[in-house]
Amino acid sequence: MTEHSMPLPTYDDVAAAAQRLSGVAHHTPVMRCTAIDEQLGAKLFFKCENLQRTGAFKFRGAYNALAQFTDAQREGGVLTFSAGNHAQAIALSARLLDMPALIVMPEDAATSKMAATRDYGAQVVTYNRHTEDREAISRQLARERGMTLVPPFDHPHVIAGQGTAALELLQEVPDLDYLFVCLGGGGLLAGSLLAAQALAPQCKVIGVEPATANDAQQSLRAGHIVTIDHPQTIADGAQTQSLGVLTYPIIRDHVEDIITVSDEQLIQALRVFAGRMKITVEPTGALAFAGVQAFSGEDTGAKLLHGERVGVIVSGGNVDLARYSRFLAD
Amino acid sequence: MTEHSMPLPTYDDVAAAAQRLSGVAHHTPVMRCTAIDEQLGAKLFFKCENLQRTGAFKFRGAYNALAQFTDAQREGGVLTFSAGNHAQAIALSARLLDMPALIVMPEDAATSKMAATRDYGAQVVTYNRHTEDREAISRQLARERGMTLVPPFDHPHVIAGQGTAALELLQEVPDLDYLFVCLGGGGLLAGSLLAAQALAPQCKVIGVEPATANDAQQSLRAGHIVTIDHPQTIADGAQTQSLGVLTYPIIRDHVEDIITVSDEQLIQALRVFAGRMKITVEPTGALAFAGVQAFSGEDTGAKLLHGERVGVIVSGGNVDLARYSRFLAD
Repeated sequence: MTEHSMPLPTYDDVAAAAQRLSGVAHHTPVMRCTAIDEQLGAKLFFKCENLQRTGAFKFRGAYNALAQFTDAQREGGVLTFSAGNHAQAIALSARLLDMPALIVMPEDAATSKMAATRDYGAQVVTYNRHTEDREAISRQLARERGMTLVPPFDHPHVIAGQGTAALELLQEVPDLDYLFVCLGGGGLLAGSLLAAQALAPQCKVIGVEPATANDAQQSLRAGHIVTIDHPQTIADGAQTQSLGVLTYPIIRDHVEDIITVSDEQLIQALRVFAGRMKITVEPTGALAFAGVQAFSGEDTGAKLLHGERVGVIVSGGNVDLARYSRFLAD
Repeated sequence: MTEHSMPLPTYDDVAAAAQRLSGVAHHTPVMRCTAIDEQLGAKLFFKCENLQRTGAFKFRGAYNALAQFTDAQREGGVLTFSAGNHAQAIALSARLLDMPALIVMPEDAATSKMAATRDYGAQVVTYNRHTEDREAISRQLARERGMTLVPPFDHPHVIAGQGTAALELLQEVPDLDYLFVCLGGGGLLAGSLLAAQALAPQCKVIGVEPATANDAQQSLRAGHIVTIDHPQTIADGAQTQSLGVLTYPIIRDHVEDIITVSDEQLIQALRVFAGRMKITVEPTGALAFAGVQAFSGEDTGAKLLHGERVGVIVSGGNVDLARYSRFLAD
């Protein structure tokens, strides 16, 4: 089965992923904050995937994909390319399922992320991201070593796994009016849409991406996948250049809208998480909440979410402390 | 009933407090961290009171005290002195129980804490902490205005309320070998001891205080209450000068030991909380975990907690972000 012949995942795949992840992934808490609710005049439900294993929702998709490997695939092991949370998610999943893992990372990736990936037992191969093509390198290595490539988002098992975060949230809080979800490649958003379609068809799902990396918003408006070459934003998890061939049609057909926020709005959201809610959130993880604040028209007094019940997926909490401390400083 | 004639609280008071707080205080989560467990060779259970209402365990004791006011006391309202978490705890409890609250705070208290206290609807009166005696001011104001004084720790209802955090932890994880609890005035530790005595008599309870503010450790060794005039530590919640007449005998009779940690150890613990566990913890809130690390002999390889099940109370998460960011920076 090649990537392009893969079928679109469905809600049944999300439900099956939830079974596979039961007792393996954390059932993360849904947090509330009275002060924020009062400020926005809405009821917000924060699904805290920053408290997920490896510090991000990515563990769900990675484990769901690896758990479906054949015996031959397990023996060969898994390979992926990622400078971020998907790397650690694949590394831990491979360790739990007792198979080799090889991660292709840019040579200038954060040393802490490389170290964390190696700590989970994966082998790391580096490349120069200015002169080399990581996908070509990955495909070649996979062929040479007999490993199976699991890409960061454009894979039906990955999408289905990511959808289990929204599934858990909607099982706990079924009557949401809105659900805000961040997006880079769109795996989390596509999976969330599958879950919401089945469990809460009344719930409007809004995607949120950085203003400077709004390729998905542009794709939605243009009616085809739009690419942005080198998006600059502090939300490093949303710096992907385009949606995938699987995530795009799901998002196009089911999302209510895609909105954008600025880096400054992300920093303000990080500060609310740290100071009010007492949780560490990475910039990408703050996209959905920053989107809620922007959408609500809080600044203009419009309060468009007044009286509504709003789900917010906090996607991750992996951020170098030195960098994080600069965001929190005045 | 004057302060000195008050009876010592018992476990029954803690159990009654838990009933009173049910549905009012958050039942805070117990968090785990695989990486920390592997490092220490122990199983740690973190009771996250930084996620409690008002950001600290103090809400438990304050609400438990105010909920037992007579009708006449409710009409007169509550008064306290505090520059920290007890102020916000009293302010919110008074608002929930619909009574006036007056908080005596030093005029150089953090503006954010004064603002938070006023946001909960309390009146703030300031004093000069270099030239004036806050307890004398408080007693005089209480007399003049017909208000009831609820001090920060040396009150049976406050102690009983604080004990409900350990009660919840021990109901969820009954077979703890150790429980580490921070202390300033000793309200949380005394309440925790009452809970542990009844629910887990096998569990050794260890108090942890800053090395420069080790009045309780000295008191335990001396056999009487020792006072330290102006203890200097970043753990501002543990800068109290001495134990109270109620907290001291409970601690003396039941605690296994009291150990100390340095400010540098607290900062290292804050960084683990932020980076690994993704939660904001204030310096005082990190005392217990820093105590676990020191006690375990991790640095020396002694690993004294090897194979043990260890409860850790994370007492609060209220810290100015500018200050917090400096702790996290390299």
